[in-house]
Amino acid sequence: MKITSILYLLLLGPLIGNAQENLDFSGNKTIVSPDINGKQITFRLLAPEAKTVKLEGNWMKTDDLNFGIKDSRGVWSFTNQDLKPDIYTYSFIVDGVKATDPNNAYQVRDVSSVMSMFIVNGPESSNYTVQNVPHGTVAKRWYTSRGLKEDRRLTVYTPPGYEASKEKYPVLYLLHGMGGDEEAWMTLGRASQILDNLIAQGKAKPMIVIMPNGHTSNAAAPGESSKGFYKIDMVTPDIFTGDMEANFNEIIAFTEQNYRVKADAKNRAIAGLSMGGFHSLYISANQPKTFDYIGLFSPAILPPENKKSTIYENLDAKLQVQKNNAYRLYWIAIGKTDFLYKHVAGFRDKLDKMNFSYQYVESEGGHTWSNWRKYLNDFVPQLFK
Amino acid sequence: MKITSILYLLLLGPLIGNAQENLDFSGNKTIVSPDINGKQITFRLLAPEAKTVKLEGNWMKTDDLNFGIKDSRGVWSFTNQDLKPDIYTYSFIVDGVKATDPNNAYQVRDVSSVMSMFIVNGPESSNYTVQNVPHGTVAKRWYTSRGLKEDRRLTVYTPPGYEASKEKYPVLYLLHGMGGDEEAWMTLGRASQILDNLIAQGKAKPMIVIMPNGHTSNAAAPGESSKGFYKIDMVTPDIFTGDMEANFNEIIAFTEQNYRVKADAKNRAIAGLSMGGFHSLYISANQPKTFDYIGLFSPAILPPENKKSTIYENLDAKLQVQKNNAYRLYWIAIGKTDFLYKHVAGFRDKLDKMNFSYQYVESEGGHTWSNWRKYLNDFVPQLFK
Repeated sequence: MKITSILYLLLLGPLIGNAQENLDFSGNKTIVSPDINGKQITFRLLAPEAKTVKLEGNWMKTDDLNFGIKDSRGVWSFTNQDLKPDIYTYSFIVDGVKATDPNNAYQVRDVSSVMSMFIVNGPESSNYTVQNVPHGTVAKRWYTSRGLKEDRRLTVYTPPGYEASKEKYPVLYLLHGMGGDEEAWMTLGRASQILDNLIAQGKAKPMIVIMPNGHTSNAAAPGESSKGFYKIDMVTPDIFTGDMEANFNEIIAFTEQNYRVKADAKNRAIAGLSMGGFHSLYISANQPKTFDYIGLFSPAILPPENKKSTIYENLDAKLQVQKNNAYRLYWIAIGKTDFLYKHVAGFRDKLDKMNFSYQYVESEGGHTWSNWRKYLNDFVPQLFK
Repeated sequence: MKITSILYLLLLGPLIGNAQENLDFSGNKTIVSPDINGKQITFRLLAPEAKTVKLEGNWMKTDDLNFGIKDSRGVWSFTNQDLKPDIYTYSFIVDGVKATDPNNAYQVRDVSSVMSMFIVNGPESSNYTVQNVPHGTVAKRWYTSRGLKEDRRLTVYTPPGYEASKEKYPVLYLLHGMGGDEEAWMTLGRASQILDNLIAQGKAKPMIVIMPNGHTSNAAAPGESSKGFYKIDMVTPDIFTGDMEANFNEIIAFTEQNYRVKADAKNRAIAGLSMGGFHSLYISANQPKTFDYIGLFSPAILPPENKKSTIYENLDAKLQVQKNNAYRLYWIAIGKTDFLYKHVAGFRDKLDKMNFSYQYVESEGGHTWSNWRKYLNDFVPQLFK
């Protein structure tokens, strides 16, 4: 048993098969990908047997797949120039099959797709990184829903110092989109990093953020509910039923019973992306004295005509009551090329005619996490002032 | 804006490009994979352009890759029979490149590899599933290490009812292997499900489980530390330096200051897999009055000869003190084909010669998560009795 450390480690190499997990010294691991030099990114993949290897990145147009160059070792490489600071996702397409980058340990799931992820550093993306600042705690916790007759999982961000403090905090309820679940704002949205950094910079008040699962037919994310490792069906039967909105008070009650919170409208905010924006619109309109801060990020606006729920009825009258209650901020943001752009424009017309005051932000781009991270980063500093 | 729900959803289809994230209606999603019928599993992949598609599963021998059968649509399929109840991981090899299964939303990272995951249900795997029982809370939390001069992240499982209770709880410190981090026991190890289920069955006492990051050169998992989305280097410079063991008291102090715990040896357990078993061995030997329960799962035993630390010196004398202190359980488990088997046999010889009492479990298989989940499930019921 007297061996040097290098020998000790080398010894493991030949022993690695599938019977010896947690140890992987395969050759591809020696390749650097993505290789990030400022705004120039090189992607590499060892694939000597492949006929074609393409790169599909979320910054590229779909008809703009790059064809890689293969060197004599069988390493394909692609270089992208001038990517602005942000988080990006990508895949390789190997002879027609989408694959993540085996040299990049960081991958995220979006709906049922898993993609490799990287960040281009710079001022616009610095709040998405983990910095040397105090960090909040992120908990996955279960609450009992009497209305939905099951235990359901949610994600809770408590700000740095929460546990040691005796103070009460305001709460932001932060909702995901149709393809998401209670994990999406943490993984793709980088919400805990954004909150940590804004709080450390003094730009945001310390707050609790509650991220529930917006699909009432799913108690939790795949692998985390009794459905097992279920396949994500984006169009779940619960969409547009009003069940999420009708049972939302349970989530507020759970939060206010289990955390030290300031339990009044001026210390409650609700915001969400896409379907979560739709939820935020209807939850706040149906309980017009509950939230003083409302954020609609690329929101869907109207349910399909054949979907009926008292939640969706008499929207104009409900908005009129909400207007009269003098909330503090009604914030709407959408990208210029978002497929929901016209719906939001129609909603703004309605609000304008009512003299319902709101702030409107029109960004570049479409229905993307790049926008939603930015919207969160811009929305949170305006809360609880 | 008056459209039926089906139209509304179909409308989204043609609009989906990379500029419209969180929405993916690609054709491959209509394929069922893995298709689980009892112990018979069929894997499918749409890859009409590929020359070869192979399946690599962690239940297969490495030289035993199955070659798929391609049908006229270009769907490759593989069927496996008689897989015993357990959690499995697999990848496809498409023209030589490893890829996850695009139809399976559940993927896990092991070291720097990401694989698709599924479960075969049955008595042996039921504790790995989310059942209709009360669930504990899983938090990612940061503590300040004075010794390592940084904030570090750990995972904390608190049992069902912890938040509402005023009771104090025993603590299990649960350590990962060389390729892992503070997330590994939750993702690959299914520790929260195992704890939830054992507690609900009355087989385990409600306990807190603390899962720190065992690499002192990494403050947190990839993407969660200031290193960014770092590439995982399994052989980190911290290995065998003794730094993890020497600074472990900070983790105990943090736990005991921040949670309602029973802070004595008979309510403290420490266990770990592989490198974490090595850590558990040396941490418990160096502070022989701290833990009454020690679990070594497929442990490494001796540091390489050129690695020096006071932590590793005089092991025999330290074990003698530990023996005299009359711990309650010293539990060692290893698989018959584990590459560390001989090292563990040598350690058992040493213990036998000292009359150092321990329980020994020899399982089938090797250095695998299949064994480590099982060891955790068998070890936890023996604690704090």
